[in-house]
Amino acid sequence: MKVLITTVPFGQKDTQPLENLNNAGIEYLINPINRKLDEDEIASIIGEYDAVIAGTEPITDRVLESAPKLKLISRVGIGLDSVDLSSAKRRGIEVSYTPDAPSPAVAELTVGLMLALLRSTHRSNMEMHNGQWHRYFGKRLSECVVGIIGAGRIGSRVVGLLSGFGCNEVKVNDLNMTSEICSDVNWEWCDKVSIYREADIISLHVPLNAKTRGMISRKELLMMKSHAYLINTSRGGIVDEDDLSNVLSEGHLGGAAIDVFEKEPYAGPLTSIDRCLLTAHMGSMSEDCRARMEIEATEEVVRFCKGIPLTHQVPMEEYVNQKLALDR
Amino acid sequence: MKVLITTVPFGQKDTQPLENLNNAGIEYLINPINRKLDEDEIASIIGEYDAVIAGTEPITDRVLESAPKLKLISRVGIGLDSVDLSSAKRRGIEVSYTPDAPSPAVAELTVGLMLALLRSTHRSNMEMHNGQWHRYFGKRLSECVVGIIGAGRIGSRVVGLLSGFGCNEVKVNDLNMTSEICSDVNWEWCDKVSIYREADIISLHVPLNAKTRGMISRKELLMMKSHAYLINTSRGGIVDEDDLSNVLSEGHLGGAAIDVFEKEPYAGPLTSIDRCLLTAHMGSMSEDCRARMEIEATEEVVRFCKGIPLTHQVPMEEYVNQKLALDR
Repeated sequence: MKVLITTVPFGQKDTQPLENLNNAGIEYLINPINRKLDEDEIASIIGEYDAVIAGTEPITDRVLESAPKLKLISRVGIGLDSVDLSSAKRRGIEVSYTPDAPSPAVAELTVGLMLALLRSTHRSNMEMHNGQWHRYFGKRLSECVVGIIGAGRIGSRVVGLLSGFGCNEVKVNDLNMTSEICSDVNWEWCDKVSIYREADIISLHVPLNAKTRGMISRKELLMMKSHAYLINTSRGGIVDEDDLSNVLSEGHLGGAAIDVFEKEPYAGPLTSIDRCLLTAHMGSMSEDCRARMEIEATEEVVRFCKGIPLTHQVPMEEYVNQKLALDR
Repeated sequence: MKVLITTVPFGQKDTQPLENLNNAGIEYLINPINRKLDEDEIASIIGEYDAVIAGTEPITDRVLESAPKLKLISRVGIGLDSVDLSSAKRRGIEVSYTPDAPSPAVAELTVGLMLALLRSTHRSNMEMHNGQWHRYFGKRLSECVVGIIGAGRIGSRVVGLLSGFGCNEVKVNDLNMTSEICSDVNWEWCDKVSIYREADIISLHVPLNAKTRGMISRKELLMMKSHAYLINTSRGGIVDEDDLSNVLSEGHLGGAAIDVFEKEPYAGPLTSIDRCLLTAHMGSMSEDCRARMEIEATEEVVRFCKGIPLTHQVPMEEYVNQKLALDR
């Protein structure tokens, strides 16, 4: 059994994931290019491998076409937008993921980004390192209408983390507006357009699929309050980066915090906008969550290798959702 | 009655404070230099004024010597380190302050700085704006020992804000380790040295006086864990800036977030250290808290002018503490 590990860094802070593979006598290669692979790159090296421990690189039909031996895709993380699930199914390739592990880290990063945007700490920090001193006014969370779009594992946790902040108005949208959210703040279900129009700070926690791609484009951005803040820690592609960049350049919106990009590493026009806080896809990068994700992903590979049933096989619902979204 | 307003900005986001003065027919001048005044500057302009609405500029015995008409110092904020209280008392000058208004804003900024340090968002943001992409590992609050030094109005609120974050170990130190702190996290009283040695993240919420000046110098910094983070949103002078800068340059500590400086605007060696998050004394700068501070400070001036008793006169305890600390 030969395993290709495409996601990097891997096994760096905690060696347990690599020990899992070593102990099971599984041979592996960690992505030698040491950054997110593009379609051509992964297609060119995947050929000889039986399993891939995958990040968010595109595992398309063409990539799977070049992987005649592949039997398992074990995703380190929750998003499945990068994997052509129906192509994998057609080829008899199993897909597993780690849906719970990243959530606490992504949610906590999100609240940190909210607080940074509201108080302009990112701007003051850059300025002070450049010898400038400007005292920015800011807002407290309790003075803001907070909008959360997507209340699954991560979005609902964000609302929970706000418990101590005395938020008076948290508006939450989800396809399924029924589940309970555990938080001491004052929250309510709400439609998306009301969130765009009324929220002072809007955070996105939806999967990327054909329905959410470009969900926040110029039209939605212009619906937002002139001082509103937008946060995306979910997936690149949900916010149209060029539209965001243009709208910010035109002076609309108080700012934005973007952790995920259509093409990573990102080096586009948002990098020249000071009030856009940019981070390098670090949502899941807390040591504990990253370790759990890597351990869970390697455990699936070991199970597969030993013929033990997988514990986090991607559920049929995800295949159906991806297909439905594509058919729209 | 002529009032000198030294703190800037003033009356900018909310005009109520200036209306308070106008409605009472009080003549005022807002600091024409538009930054924190030094001792000479304030001494040279204070001469003709009956009251001063003060920021953190030094109101020393020498400044008061040049203010023969002065009858009231109304501090916008809580710290009294900048005012020579015994000199004011000797000259029959009343002193009032706004002890509660800034706390919510300072506490919330502090938690924002904790989350930024723990996830290196400040570093990633600077790098991405410079065309670099590096995914930093971080930690969640629940994986850290959090140390809070000073559990008065602000420190105790910081512990409260952590409620949603599931912190397992929050160590709190205060001169008076008896009061109750309202928080859902697991916190306990602790001595300062244990906090220096055991905490992963240490936040300071003490007043500046002769006892706390230089409280965190090289010796204390070297007691801290090699990856520890230090936050100071209380007062410059509590952390020795040169020692912090040296220790960080030598590779000790994970980083620091410093909002307050001995001399403001700050332009010292910390500006060249990337893992030191710097902000321009913005602790109290949320719109709501700043407005409350300014309104309360002008209301005191109006009361004084009309011969109504002050409501936030600095209590005798503060005079005694300042004297005791100086006598040490």
